[in-house]
Amino acid sequence: MVAVKTKDKKFVVTPWEVKGEVDYDKLVKQFGTQKITPSLLKRIEKHTGELHFMLRRGIFFSHRDFDWILDRYEAGEKFFLYTGRGPSGHVHLGHLIPWIFTKWLQDKFDVELYFQMTDDEKHLVKNLTLEQTLGFTYDNILDLIALGFDHKKTFIFSDIEYAKTLYKMAIRIAKHVNFSTAKAVFGFTSQSNIGIIFFPAMQAAPCFFPSELKKKNMPCLIPAAIDQDLYWRISRDIAPKLGFYKPAQIHSKFIPGLGPGAKMSASDPSTAIFTTDSPEVVREKIMKAFTGQQATKELQRKLGGNPDICSICQYYFYLFEEDDKKVQKIFEQERNGELLAGEHKADLADKAVKFIMEHQKKREKAKDQIEKFMLRD
Amino acid sequence: MVAVKTKDKKFVVTPWEVKGEVDYDKLVKQFGTQKITPSLLKRIEKHTGELHFMLRRGIFFSHRDFDWILDRYEAGEKFFLYTGRGPSGHVHLGHLIPWIFTKWLQDKFDVELYFQMTDDEKHLVKNLTLEQTLGFTYDNILDLIALGFDHKKTFIFSDIEYAKTLYKMAIRIAKHVNFSTAKAVFGFTSQSNIGIIFFPAMQAAPCFFPSELKKKNMPCLIPAAIDQDLYWRISRDIAPKLGFYKPAQIHSKFIPGLGPGAKMSASDPSTAIFTTDSPEVVREKIMKAFTGQQATKELQRKLGGNPDICSICQYYFYLFEEDDKKVQKIFEQERNGELLAGEHKADLADKAVKFIMEHQKKREKAKDQIEKFMLRD
Repeated sequence: MVAVKTKDKKFVVTPWEVKGEVDYDKLVKQFGTQKITPSLLKRIEKHTGELHFMLRRGIFFSHRDFDWILDRYEAGEKFFLYTGRGPSGHVHLGHLIPWIFTKWLQDKFDVELYFQMTDDEKHLVKNLTLEQTLGFTYDNILDLIALGFDHKKTFIFSDIEYAKTLYKMAIRIAKHVNFSTAKAVFGFTSQSNIGIIFFPAMQAAPCFFPSELKKKNMPCLIPAAIDQDLYWRISRDIAPKLGFYKPAQIHSKFIPGLGPGAKMSASDPSTAIFTTDSPEVVREKIMKAFTGQQATKELQRKLGGNPDICSICQYYFYLFEEDDKKVQKIFEQERNGELLAGEHKADLADKAVKFIMEHQKKREKAKDQIEKFMLRD
Repeated sequence: MVAVKTKDKKFVVTPWEVKGEVDYDKLVKQFGTQKITPSLLKRIEKHTGELHFMLRRGIFFSHRDFDWILDRYEAGEKFFLYTGRGPSGHVHLGHLIPWIFTKWLQDKFDVELYFQMTDDEKHLVKNLTLEQTLGFTYDNILDLIALGFDHKKTFIFSDIEYAKTLYKMAIRIAKHVNFSTAKAVFGFTSQSNIGIIFFPAMQAAPCFFPSELKKKNMPCLIPAAIDQDLYWRISRDIAPKLGFYKPAQIHSKFIPGLGPGAKMSASDPSTAIFTTDSPEVVREKIMKAFTGQQATKELQRKLGGNPDICSICQYYFYLFEEDDKKVQKIFEQERNGELLAGEHKADLADKAVKFIMEHQKKREKAKDQIEKFMLRD
C-alpha cells in the first residue's frame, strides 16, 4: 500500500484502490516518475503531427522513459504497446479513456498492441468463478474492438487461455522476485493466496514475451493509469537480468466518477456509466450526477459553480469534447453561473447516449471479430 | 521443514531433503499416514493375483485412503494414477523404483497414468535455464518410456509446455491456499521466490485436471516416495472445496545410496547409478560401493557383515532380485561372512550392467515414441 500524506489532505493510490483527492504532483514524486514536459510534448508532436487532447490537457501527465522510446523510434526501432484490463465486470467509460489514447498512439506510430485480460487475477481476488471471469473477458473484449482497433496489429490474450506462453515467461521473472520484495511492493500479507502472490509475474510477462516471440529485443511502452505503475517496477528491475529492455510507461490520471471525488469505479455502479447500460440508464445516471452547483438556480446564477468538482464538466474534459475551446467555454459557463445543472446535464446526456448507442452497435459487430484479435498458443 | 527427533537419532524428511537414518514408523506417525497392513495386502492381492515384491518387502509401506480406492474400484469406479519427476538432471536407479511399481499398478488395475514433469519447479529453484530443464524433461521421459509403459493409457506432460491446462486448475487451487499455510507446510521464507510459492498449486493440479478433462469425478492414486506427502496434504484439504475426490496415496521408502545412509541422491553422483552411465562407470561405481564389511577377508569370514547397511544387499532388495528367497539367501550370506565384498559386488555389477545396457537400448527406441505419450493443450 502506498499512502501519500500531505499537509491538508490524504490520499491513497494502489493498483486496487484510489481514495481521496489525488495530488498528482506528489504522486509523481512519490512514485519517482517523470512529468510530461512541454518539450517532450513538442517532440511527440513532431512524430504525430498533432497532440491528442489527453496529452494537451495533461490527462496523460507522467511517464517513465518515454523519451527513450522516442530515441529508439527515431533510430528506426519500433516499440510495441502493452496494456490490459481486469475483467471483473462490465466496462465503463473510465476504462475506455486509456484505450482511446492507446489507439491513438498505435495509429500515429504504427505499432503493435498486446492487450492482456487478467482474468486469472480476478478469479484469485474476487468472488468469481473461472467461468464468470472468462465470461467478462469475452464481454470486455467487445468494448476494445468497438473502439476500432486494427486486428492486424492488435493482439488480445486471456491470462487463463494464453497461460502456456505467459507462464513460460512468468517463471523466468518469478525466479528473480522473492516474497519479501513482492510484499513490499504490493502489500501482500500472510493471508494473501499463493496465486495472487505469483500474479505480478504473470502481469510482467507481456513486457517481454512479444520480444521472445519475435526473437528480437523490442522496446515496450505501457499506457495505463498511474495506479498500475507498481507492477512495472518489478518488470523494470528484472528486465536487464533477462536480457530485455526495461518497459517504458505513460501514465494517466483517473477519470472522476459521477459522485464527488475518487475515480469512476465499477464497484459503485451509480458512479459509473457502463458501456452496456441502456440509453435510459445512461441518461438517468447523468441527470442524477454530482455537479457541485449551488442549492438554487438563483444562487447558481449569482455565485456560479466549480467546474473542477463538477462531474459533468469533467466528462467533457476527459472524454466527450475534443475541442479545447469548447471545453474552456463550458468551464467558464459553469464558473460564471450561466449553465444551470439541468440543462448542463441534459446536454451531456444527449452526447453520452449518442456515444453509447453507437458503441453498442459496434460492440454487436465485434462479436464476429473476436477470433481475429485473439492470441492463441 | 519436518524434522523428526527421536531419543537416539535425528532425521529430516522434506520434499527437498532426506537426512539421517530414517525411522519410517515415526514418519508414519508424524505425517499421519496409515501403514499398509497385512489385511490391506490381502485385499490388493485379490485384485492383482500376486503381490509386487515392493509390497511384499514393505518398500511401499504407507498410504492414505488406498482402502477407499479399492472400495471405489470394487464399486466399478476406476481410479487414475498420478506421479511425476523433477527433471533437474539424469535419472538414476532410485527414481525407477516407484515408476516400476506404478507400471505394475497400471497393468494390474488397467488404469490411466498421468505423469508430470515439474520442469517449472526445477527452473525456479535450481541454477538451470528453462531450456536446460526442458532438455532434462525430454531426456528423463526416455527412461519412463523405456520401462514399457503403454502410451494408450500413459499421459506425460511438462509443466512448462502443458501450462495452459495446469495453470487453469492451479489458480482454482491457489485461491484456497494462503501464504501462511504454504509457509507452514513447505517451509517457505521471505526469500522464497514467488514462483516456487505458487508451485504447490501446479503440483496439486494433476490430482484434479484429469477429472475436469473427462468431465467426471475420478479417484486419484499417487504412488511416490513419502517425502512428497506434503504436497498432497494441500490437495486433500482443497479437494472438497472444488468438488473433487481427495487424492489417495501409496508411499515408498527411499532407496539407499551406494554410500552409507540417506537416499540415493542425484546431487552426489558417486552415490547414484544413472541410467545414462556407461557400463564401465556402472561397474566402477558398484565396485567402489559401501558394504560395511569387516576390514579384512578373514574378519569378514569370522564376524560376518550387516546386510541392512550393505548397499549391495540393498540393491538386490530394492530392485535387482524379485525372488524373496534369493534375497534372503544373499542377506544370510552377507550376515554369516560367506560373501566377500569383491565377489558380492562383481555379481551385482554383472546384473546392473546387463540392466543398464538393456535399458539404454530401450531408451534409444523411446526417442521415436515421445510424442505418442505427450499431453498437449
